[in-house]
Amino acid sequence: MALQPEMEHPKKAFGWAARDSSGVLSPFKFSRRETGEKDVAFKVLYCGICHSDLHMLKNEWGSSIYPLVPGHEVSGEVTKVGSMVTKFKVGDKVGVGCMVGSCHSCQSCGDDLENYCSKMILTYGAKNIDGTITYGGYSDTMVAHEHFVIRIPDALPLDAAAPLLCAGITVYSPLKYFGLNKPGLHVGVVGLGGLGHMAVKFTKAFGANVTVISTSPNKKKEAIEHLGADSFVVSHEQDQMQAVMGTFDGIIDTVSALHPLMPLMGLLKNHGKLVMVGAPEKPLELPAFSLIGGRKIIGGSMIGGIKETQEMIDFAAKHDVKPDIEVIPIDYVNSAMDRLLKADVKYRFVIDIGNTLKASS
Amino acid sequence: MALQPEMEHPKKAFGWAARDSSGVLSPFKFSRRETGEKDVAFKVLYCGICHSDLHMLKNEWGSSIYPLVPGHEVSGEVTKVGSMVTKFKVGDKVGVGCMVGSCHSCQSCGDDLENYCSKMILTYGAKNIDGTITYGGYSDTMVAHEHFVIRIPDALPLDAAAPLLCAGITVYSPLKYFGLNKPGLHVGVVGLGGLGHMAVKFTKAFGANVTVISTSPNKKKEAIEHLGADSFVVSHEQDQMQAVMGTFDGIIDTVSALHPLMPLMGLLKNHGKLVMVGAPEKPLELPAFSLIGGRKIIGGSMIGGIKETQEMIDFAAKHDVKPDIEVIPIDYVNSAMDRLLKADVKYRFVIDIGNTLKASS
Repeated sequence: MALQPEMEHPKKAFGWAARDSSGVLSPFKFSRRETGEKDVAFKVLYCGICHSDLHMLKNEWGSSIYPLVPGHEVSGEVTKVGSMVTKFKVGDKVGVGCMVGSCHSCQSCGDDLENYCSKMILTYGAKNIDGTITYGGYSDTMVAHEHFVIRIPDALPLDAAAPLLCAGITVYSPLKYFGLNKPGLHVGVVGLGGLGHMAVKFTKAFGANVTVISTSPNKKKEAIEHLGADSFVVSHEQDQMQAVMGTFDGIIDTVSALHPLMPLMGLLKNHGKLVMVGAPEKPLELPAFSLIGGRKIIGGSMIGGIKETQEMIDFAAKHDVKPDIEVIPIDYVNSAMDRLLKADVKYRFVIDIGNTLKASS
Repeated sequence: MALQPEMEHPKKAFGWAARDSSGVLSPFKFSRRETGEKDVAFKVLYCGICHSDLHMLKNEWGSSIYPLVPGHEVSGEVTKVGSMVTKFKVGDKVGVGCMVGSCHSCQSCGDDLENYCSKMILTYGAKNIDGTITYGGYSDTMVAHEHFVIRIPDALPLDAAAPLLCAGITVYSPLKYFGLNKPGLHVGVVGLGGLGHMAVKFTKAFGANVTVISTSPNKKKEAIEHLGADSFVVSHEQDQMQAVMGTFDGIIDTVSALHPLMPLMGLLKNHGKLVMVGAPEKPLELPAFSLIGGRKIIGGSMIGGIKETQEMIDFAAKHDVKPDIEVIPIDYVNSAMDRLLKADVKYRFVIDIGNTLKASS
């Protein structure tokens, strides 16, 4: 019989977990492993709330294991390092993103693309090498192999740094891979949530022109004046869409609800690229002609590798790219989930773990 | 009132045309323009039958203009050149593919991608610069601006050269553009018709390993022993498909009937590429997850530019890449169309225009 979460490992830990697919989070005692020779242990200070946390809490992807402690946008301060750790020391500002393990021997791992390793271990809700289940950053402490720990530069506040570890890298990586990170290009961003607003900021930092494509006309002022987008198109306004047909080098599509892709394909120049980072559950529908006629592509991308995540964080620090966040106490987390479901957040909730998560709460 | 086809231009011409969407071809008198200063006139000797000829004959794409003289895989011998022509002289072996005009001023034209110019003029059934309708290669003579005329190397017989001008470039171009032209890569070819068999031959000539993916087990011997494919997978045999999951760098999909794409996506390695060159009329159906999980792409490609078509023909001559053809007389053309509809040809019909098309027939 498996040990209780509190007894599995030697180190006491505390967080908030969902016990079932109601998804309601409540205080939860569990444990963390001893700091191994290549491990870094750190006190969690902030943890972002990703939309996928909501899917996982409610078992909407069918893979959730309860009790489930979410959180894969984690930042904090190193408290202990193993004897073989070379990259970090006690007191360093660090973070952990979506993964805490991979095989280290496949082609993907060799190419610094651990995110595509078939044995990649997710930061929470996944089976770890020792057979126990991983618990995420809605908790007081974490321990991870140093390979999967990101150094957070001093120029980045730890609360703003947290969402970069998932939302940030999820848009940064495809912008680079699909060659949309060049000055003067015209890049579209579909959807203005946690991912979308980061896509606007990174694309601007790369020097490209950014157009936000949205169903909500009332986001225009915010997109342009606050986030720095160059222009804004309402996707159901035929005239506005017609005016920008064939003008985009690429589009980052962050929308995870089902939506028509044909109009977006029409916005692309020849050889343009539509990149899906949000994943609608139902299949895409797309006439092959819309690809063939202009040698266009549809691609997808999923977070990014560890090396690229470090590069992204360093780039963000250098270019002052930070998410817009609403910092909340842990006991607001269920309300935050309700608001997230209604897209009522600009643009990322970040839980102030360090100041509000108490073992006595 | 528009002039009759016979009277539009000064030069008498003769071919076979469909008069309506029955698609039945019969002898047809028309005319060709005088050889302009940048024009090349040539005697047509061979013309390949492309599957799109069949669609156009029956107006299945809704854009056909009758009378319709098909043919965009045309080879022959130069009979006259304009005063400003520099590339060709009388007696040269030449060919014309899918297009005879473009704007010469857009980005696509500037990039030698006239095939993606929005003003590209198709070789038949399209409005030419002078307002008359273009007639294709099921005819005794052609005249075209030298820019759109391809030189056919001596090493290539003119009958085998003809299908390269559409079927050949249609697969050669995406193999290059999507980086599938490198030794050691594993490339899949879906469908073994006119396009598919050329894809096998070009991919082999590039030094890649080729697997044919087909619904027809009885094509295996032919694919491997005759066409030189390295292996063969029956797409509805789960075991065979499972055995090659995640092993393909790219797949060229030549099938224009609707077919499931998900199994093909599963065959790709991470970062693999599925390229559509056949265009099913109904929309593709594809879960976004199948793209995102392995950073895969679906792309399309449509013929190729003139510069690349010349490069392809020269490559084919050098590496002895030739289509398998069945040479037919012009008065067999309607029977050939019936057989083409049943995919009963290995793998391309080529009409022997020079020896069988007579003005008196």
